[in-house]
Amino acid sequence: MSSQNENVIDITDRSGISTQPFPGSEKAYVVGSRDDIRVPFRKISLTDTPNRDTSKAGEPNAPIYVYDTSGIYTDPSATIDLEKGLPAIRTSWIESRDDTEELDEYSSEFTREQEAAMLEIPLFNHNRKPLRAKAGKNVSQMHYARRGIVTPEMEFIAIRENVGREEADKAGSLPEGFSSHITPEFVRIEVAEGRAIIPANINHPEAEPMIIGRNFLVKINANIGNSATTSSIEEEVEKMVWSTRWGGDTVMDLSTGKHIHQTREWIIRNSPVPIGTVPLYQALEKVDGIAENLTWEVFRDTLIEQAEQGVSYFTIHAGVRLSHIPLTVNRTTGIVSRGGSIMAAWCLAHHEESFLYTHFEEICEIMKAYDVSFSLGDGLRPGSQADANDEAQFAELITLGELTQIAWKHDVQVMIEGPGHVGMHKIKENMDMQLKHCHEAPFYTLGPLVTDIAPGYDHITSGIGAAMIGWYGTAMLCYVTPKEHLGLPNKDDVKTGIITYKLAAHAADLAKGHPGADIRDNAISKARFEFRWEDQFNLGLDPDTAREFHDETLPKPAAKVAHFCSMCGPKFCSMRISHDVKEAFAEKSEEFKAGGSKIYHQV
Amino acid sequence: MSSQNENVIDITDRSGISTQPFPGSEKAYVVGSRDDIRVPFRKISLTDTPNRDTSKAGEPNAPIYVYDTSGIYTDPSATIDLEKGLPAIRTSWIESRDDTEELDEYSSEFTREQEAAMLEIPLFNHNRKPLRAKAGKNVSQMHYARRGIVTPEMEFIAIRENVGREEADKAGSLPEGFSSHITPEFVRIEVAEGRAIIPANINHPEAEPMIIGRNFLVKINANIGNSATTSSIEEEVEKMVWSTRWGGDTVMDLSTGKHIHQTREWIIRNSPVPIGTVPLYQALEKVDGIAENLTWEVFRDTLIEQAEQGVSYFTIHAGVRLSHIPLTVNRTTGIVSRGGSIMAAWCLAHHEESFLYTHFEEICEIMKAYDVSFSLGDGLRPGSQADANDEAQFAELITLGELTQIAWKHDVQVMIEGPGHVGMHKIKENMDMQLKHCHEAPFYTLGPLVTDIAPGYDHITSGIGAAMIGWYGTAMLCYVTPKEHLGLPNKDDVKTGIITYKLAAHAADLAKGHPGADIRDNAISKARFEFRWEDQFNLGLDPDTAREFHDETLPKPAAKVAHFCSMCGPKFCSMRISHDVKEAFAEKSEEFKAGGSKIYHQV
Repeated sequence: MSSQNENVIDITDRSGISTQPFPGSEKAYVVGSRDDIRVPFRKISLTDTPNRDTSKAGEPNAPIYVYDTSGIYTDPSATIDLEKGLPAIRTSWIESRDDTEELDEYSSEFTREQEAAMLEIPLFNHNRKPLRAKAGKNVSQMHYARRGIVTPEMEFIAIRENVGREEADKAGSLPEGFSSHITPEFVRIEVAEGRAIIPANINHPEAEPMIIGRNFLVKINANIGNSATTSSIEEEVEKMVWSTRWGGDTVMDLSTGKHIHQTREWIIRNSPVPIGTVPLYQALEKVDGIAENLTWEVFRDTLIEQAEQGVSYFTIHAGVRLSHIPLTVNRTTGIVSRGGSIMAAWCLAHHEESFLYTHFEEICEIMKAYDVSFSLGDGLRPGSQADANDEAQFAELITLGELTQIAWKHDVQVMIEGPGHVGMHKIKENMDMQLKHCHEAPFYTLGPLVTDIAPGYDHITSGIGAAMIGWYGTAMLCYVTPKEHLGLPNKDDVKTGIITYKLAAHAADLAKGHPGADIRDNAISKARFEFRWEDQFNLGLDPDTAREFHDETLPKPAAKVAHFCSMCGPKFCSMRISHDVKEAFAEKSEEFKAGGSKIYHQV
Repeated sequence: MSSQNENVIDITDRSGISTQPFPGSEKAYVVGSRDDIRVPFRKISLTDTPNRDTSKAGEPNAPIYVYDTSGIYTDPSATIDLEKGLPAIRTSWIESRDDTEELDEYSSEFTREQEAAMLEIPLFNHNRKPLRAKAGKNVSQMHYARRGIVTPEMEFIAIRENVGREEADKAGSLPEGFSSHITPEFVRIEVAEGRAIIPANINHPEAEPMIIGRNFLVKINANIGNSATTSSIEEEVEKMVWSTRWGGDTVMDLSTGKHIHQTREWIIRNSPVPIGTVPLYQALEKVDGIAENLTWEVFRDTLIEQAEQGVSYFTIHAGVRLSHIPLTVNRTTGIVSRGGSIMAAWCLAHHEESFLYTHFEEICEIMKAYDVSFSLGDGLRPGSQADANDEAQFAELITLGELTQIAWKHDVQVMIEGPGHVGMHKIKENMDMQLKHCHEAPFYTLGPLVTDIAPGYDHITSGIGAAMIGWYGTAMLCYVTPKEHLGLPNKDDVKTGIITYKLAAHAADLAKGHPGADIRDNAISKARFEFRWEDQFNLGLDPDTAREFHDETLPKPAAKVAHFCSMCGPKFCSMRISHDVKEAFAEKSEEFKAGGSKIYHQV
């Protein structure tokens, strides 16, 4: 970080940070009711359907617009400067509400100490001051929603969620009961009633608004920053950029170790998506990793520290109560949530109720001053099939439902975290119980893993459960990488985890009948049937891998328009034969109508 | 193949063919009512649960027995000689039934031509003659079953399927309605009633008997031999060995190209699992790839050729009728089954009903003379979400149900192939329709893929659907590799496909409440919680990958007993903390009983 130039990423150089636009794609912005509501999409251009008479022109295929989480990193016209951070697109929206104030200094003692200290890794060089709600004000999106105010964030989200919906309506494929448009008013109602949250801390004005709720597209979260050893700021930012590039809708920074405050700051300033954290991890670092030394004061200061940095949701394990602990001691895998086990250790050491539970209303006061959403942690989630849907798990869930109602009393947004390791036959019960006991607050699940016996493949064991629970109504799926249970994921593992969860979330959207979700499936299948290989790659979730796999056996450019691939070879390509069949049928349709009628009747 | 020694695989050398035993595992045989019924299992030995007082001995963990498809290749005491093939374990069983005869020469003209020809690749050097049912006899397992005969094959299968069942009974975890043992009589009834098949051609006496039916463990199939270019015999055999090593219950040899006859023979002679084929592929080769030149005579000779080699099930696309073709012409992806598209092309070219349909009873006559099972192909399966559950698909399914009843009239075993590309919300309808229209004949599905948008990850998009349809009642799942839609899978892709499908099949067994299925899950979760890393690796479906992933960040031997991994590090290991919690609770249980009762009541 010695000179500024070092951190201005040269878009033409593209080293360090992944900024390549997607192949065949460009950034497209849809402008809302005001010029500063510019909603990003990825527009995938397609080639023409070739005419069988090659002397004639082909038939054009309309471009496909897809939801885009990658921010301006994939926009070649944008300048990326990590030291400046992303443009603060929400600042004027927040200011115009006139319910926040700039603070002269950070409210967190810890932050002030950091500012005063000589640090190995520098603090982000701010050009703005932290915001907080004015005394007596509540700046949560839920608070606005409940007072009937449609915020620019809500309008942004409505446009964003509308992708494909109009086409579905035009094509007459809009399922019954669905409207042709997600309106800003619909967004408002969902937030007001607690069925959806907009994680949008006023101190993260760089984030592009998004929504988590079961009447919207299913979202996914990617966890980053697990390293205990220091990596460079650029590496940490790249992890976030990499995650959002492949489709992470939110990113949780679970960093532990020495430079946790600075790392988080650099990530947030450069993140186009909301950032979540588990504040307990940093609080534990502050007491040298000794759970029983945790105090409400240390925890409270950590909440404020992170809220003033711009974290948009906090995992809070307030549902792990002293009285739940006996329910876990005979489990096969005990308590597998880090936060849950830390709080259980604290409760037992002090033989006291959890300070997260006893101070819950004070936490709410902090949340609403910055608009941080609760992600109520499932500290007692099952870590094995044997523990799935047990008494401990559901006892905590009921507590989470009680806490949800307390948070809502403060107009604080809430989502509920869910398991874990759960066999397919037990998944639906989780969703049903969550909806019932947590009053339809959005569910945010880790997997669930549908078997325990495949370490090394737990992105898949969990992807199965994730797709299913997404279909049943889970609003956001927390990814699992192939390294789960075994070690720290590398960059490839992160990508594999994200793509697996993107496809699971999309499968859930399809199964829910989400209007317009099938547009991309239909386009890729049409491209496949027409041997438009480049379009097939570009419409896929991971164009690079698809192209690489294809080229492994047929690398020549001519193979990109060939009417076969190496899987079946030319002679056995069913799609090629199928075109012949279609043509032969067209030629013989008269014959069919005449002599064929007898054959028809046999069906 | 110049000298015999070249093909005697030296078990100590282990080159060429994968013969390494699994780590921590040994081959264990359970002997049945007669000495030659020796049923193989993999016995996984476990280390002791460490005592927290390290001066004291740990608590032993009982070994875990798992279903083993790998044949003698993983038995270090066996001699592998590819030129001799595997021991023919079923010969005396077949002989003692006294309903077969040895033929002096092969019945297939094509086979006799091969024998007379100078071949680039040699024929397998047989020391036995082909078998066929004596005139008027029927040698299918269904025929025996229906006459009340329990064959040694059925007893073998009963023992094989019992894995874990007795333990489940002892542990009191046997679900209601399940018996503590699969009896040979139960196997007989399931086969007699058509709910299960035993693919066991009398000319493949080397195969270890297995069963496909929804009241047994869910099976998986791996496809091999897709290459159009020649690879060596050893390579082809290795593909089969590799597939069964990782859990392929059956293998389909889908070879095309020049040496298809010899390749198949070498594979069968060395295969411990039943081999399936699509005879139409070879028939098409015989008419130089021109579909309209196919004839019943060429096809019939191919059936007999392959039946006398020992193929145990044939995919026959007899459900694609001329009258179905109009239903496919407006589909997004037409006909995506290779066999289906070939037959559609033939039907249209001749404007005649499919010869597979019109000669179906003659095919049955061939099947019962060798005990080849039908795998009735779903030639009109959907190749895209847009075509899922359409009229064409279900019209064919109804035809397949009619054909099932014809085959059953001949006591010929039948399973039904299923789709394809089907969103999660449409999967159950497939299973319900299949059970209804095909009279509970076993279902054998390809995936289904729950979205079309992830080329490069279709093992996962399909693994999700496979797990679900397995839970709903599918008996065997045909694997899909990451290369699906893109190219020919390599060895890594094959393994990835198989492990994905093993975990899907196992997840289905768990969800169905199959007795004993959870034993392996419980053992691995216990090992995980007790930081028995080696046991965790060895109990997993892929010990090599699990170990490699762990060692990527923590390679030292000491890490294999460490109470953490690099994922969370020592300070944040929930399992370590959870042990402390458990111990602290034990210490404080008195305190809990006294003062804690108040806290209990708050729950």
